[in-house]
Amino acid sequence: MLGVKGKRRLLPLFSRKPGKSLEILIYYTMIKTDILIIGAGPTGLFAVFEAGLLKLKCHIIDALPQPGGQLSEIYPKKPIYDIPGFPDVLAGDLVDNLMNQIKSFEPGFTLGERAETIETLDDGSFIVTTNKGTRHHAPVIAIAGGLGSFEPRKPPLENIDFYEDRGVAYFIKNPEVYRDQRVVIAGGGDSALDWSIFLADVASEVTLVHRRNEFRGALDSVEKVQELKKLGKINLVTPAEITALHGTDKLEALSINRNGETAFLEADHFIPLFGLAPKLGPIADWGLEIEKNAIKVNNALDYQTNIPGIFAIGDVNTYPGKLKLILCGFHEATLMCQSAYQIVNPGKKYVMKYTTVSGVDGFDGSRKEAPKAVIKAIE
Amino acid sequence: MLGVKGKRRLLPLFSRKPGKSLEILIYYTMIKTDILIIGAGPTGLFAVFEAGLLKLKCHIIDALPQPGGQLSEIYPKKPIYDIPGFPDVLAGDLVDNLMNQIKSFEPGFTLGERAETIETLDDGSFIVTTNKGTRHHAPVIAIAGGLGSFEPRKPPLENIDFYEDRGVAYFIKNPEVYRDQRVVIAGGGDSALDWSIFLADVASEVTLVHRRNEFRGALDSVEKVQELKKLGKINLVTPAEITALHGTDKLEALSINRNGETAFLEADHFIPLFGLAPKLGPIADWGLEIEKNAIKVNNALDYQTNIPGIFAIGDVNTYPGKLKLILCGFHEATLMCQSAYQIVNPGKKYVMKYTTVSGVDGFDGSRKEAPKAVIKAIE
Repeated sequence: MLGVKGKRRLLPLFSRKPGKSLEILIYYTMIKTDILIIGAGPTGLFAVFEAGLLKLKCHIIDALPQPGGQLSEIYPKKPIYDIPGFPDVLAGDLVDNLMNQIKSFEPGFTLGERAETIETLDDGSFIVTTNKGTRHHAPVIAIAGGLGSFEPRKPPLENIDFYEDRGVAYFIKNPEVYRDQRVVIAGGGDSALDWSIFLADVASEVTLVHRRNEFRGALDSVEKVQELKKLGKINLVTPAEITALHGTDKLEALSINRNGETAFLEADHFIPLFGLAPKLGPIADWGLEIEKNAIKVNNALDYQTNIPGIFAIGDVNTYPGKLKLILCGFHEATLMCQSAYQIVNPGKKYVMKYTTVSGVDGFDGSRKEAPKAVIKAIE
Repeated sequence: MLGVKGKRRLLPLFSRKPGKSLEILIYYTMIKTDILIIGAGPTGLFAVFEAGLLKLKCHIIDALPQPGGQLSEIYPKKPIYDIPGFPDVLAGDLVDNLMNQIKSFEPGFTLGERAETIETLDDGSFIVTTNKGTRHHAPVIAIAGGLGSFEPRKPPLENIDFYEDRGVAYFIKNPEVYRDQRVVIAGGGDSALDWSIFLADVASEVTLVHRRNEFRGALDSVEKVQELKKLGKINLVTPAEITALHGTDKLEALSINRNGETAFLEADHFIPLFGLAPKLGPIADWGLEIEKNAIKVNNALDYQTNIPGIFAIGDVNTYPGKLKLILCGFHEATLMCQSAYQIVNPGKKYVMKYTTVSGVDGFDGSRKEAPKAVIKAIE
């Protein structure tokens, strides 16, 4: 369950020295990049573009299973009105546009994993390891973690940890997993409604459990669930709560309490969709200066943290006058890349070029440029 | 020739005191606003939006006859690749989008005039007067002047100043002025080509004069001029230069030197289109700290200049690590508005709201907001 991955390169931990006849070479799987970005929200994504203009490669880690951060996970269908140049844009469309804008710079992704530990090497570069053990090596770290990594709110069921990846999931990464399976979804918001609707055509049985009779979501989602319920394609159990999980090696059944009475329901999957809560998480222990749950940065120059080589951009940082707006993250990402360039290419001078004049050269060999003027006589 | 104007309000210079029986009230025409923005480029335009979210009114002065700054005047048809969220966008389209985004905040415009002098009143507010005498009063000034005001490059003809507004113009503000008139255009770039094409259908006679045989512009413009020349709709005179202007009260004829021979050509209008050169201009004498032809600002807080209440945003400012990028201007405009709010509403606390959550309330009574979630039982 590692999600999309960038190309992995093998990094020798002990380098081969010529002349040594017997040597143990230990290779670890290690992702190498110029800027390791933590957080695939709009700020992290746009950083890939600005880095690309400077010929710097990026790799992004995100705890969520897809890029876009909050925009994709929390409000993909909501319009945003304060992105410059867009009188309105759906959050999901903005993410699509950004993914399209950075495509030719071929960012790598480690999705569905949380950046957990950091090690500083002697040369000042860093190794960041995720909760699933994936290792990343880069001279520059850009934390674009938004409000933190979004952790699912788990229902307080005593053995729920045991059933994770054994029938219990808090995100739907691949709907095909549920084909012809018996699925129980819990929750009363848009995610619970939308996934119930979607899985009604995939799963053999969809049960939607909510502790109230009232759902809170888009009108058409509520109406669609109502309709699917009447057609018998969604079993609706309200007001009710899941009170226990059962099964030997994997989930086999649940207990549902409704009006004080407990029923037993056989099921292959249980998907509680109770929303996400942002947590700064393990990054809080990396030795960074933290203030009000955000990382302090030098906003007078390049949004660098107290640790040289580690930057914090977007909603995750704080400084006097900070506004947690996407457009500010874009600016911060851009200035950060200038200092990243100096770290990756010490002593080299970079002369900024305008894309309108110089075009954009992708790492995939593509080139975008303005139509050239011709110089031509008229006779 | 004042261009589009905002609504003017009458401001009493001496206020009426109750009880005084005889009083002379002198009213001057004076435009009043919360933030007076100098420069209608993308940064100045977006400042209107961010100010509007804070319920601050804006008025914009620009020396060019239309909004958009360089984007409209110099490269409207060129794609820009580094506006976040736009894999590419034509400069002219970006301006249209921004105008659309700020429309409901009803900015005023003083176009075709250059901000010339500034006066500070006792209460710390400012009066800015243009080269045409239009006066503007505001507690906050935001200089978003780009590389400066774009001044047309004038041909070195001794009496050309006399004929300005008497047949000689460096911009075409209203093409109808040239209907059934004899027009001479000079220049070898896109502006000269495009206006020759456009006026071929409007003027009774179009002569295009260029000092070389070769033109530099979009291929289709060059080809179109070639075609109109063959049809006899454009008189092409190359390689040639205008060497003198003639006429008693207004332009009546020109001298054209071609290959050392001078010809005499009757004409009602002469439009030299030799490009624009940016000049910081009169703003340089306002007492602001200037460095490398740009205005120094406090980038660690709000992009305020050394004069309290005067801010500089976008390409016109400088600070350590400054990048002259449109996206940076957007950020600077946004932070500037927060301090402007404090100046306009001293002591009042502003709590930032997200447009996705709170919507956008225009000054024209319009409202944009995300579709509301419903809370509804499913039975």
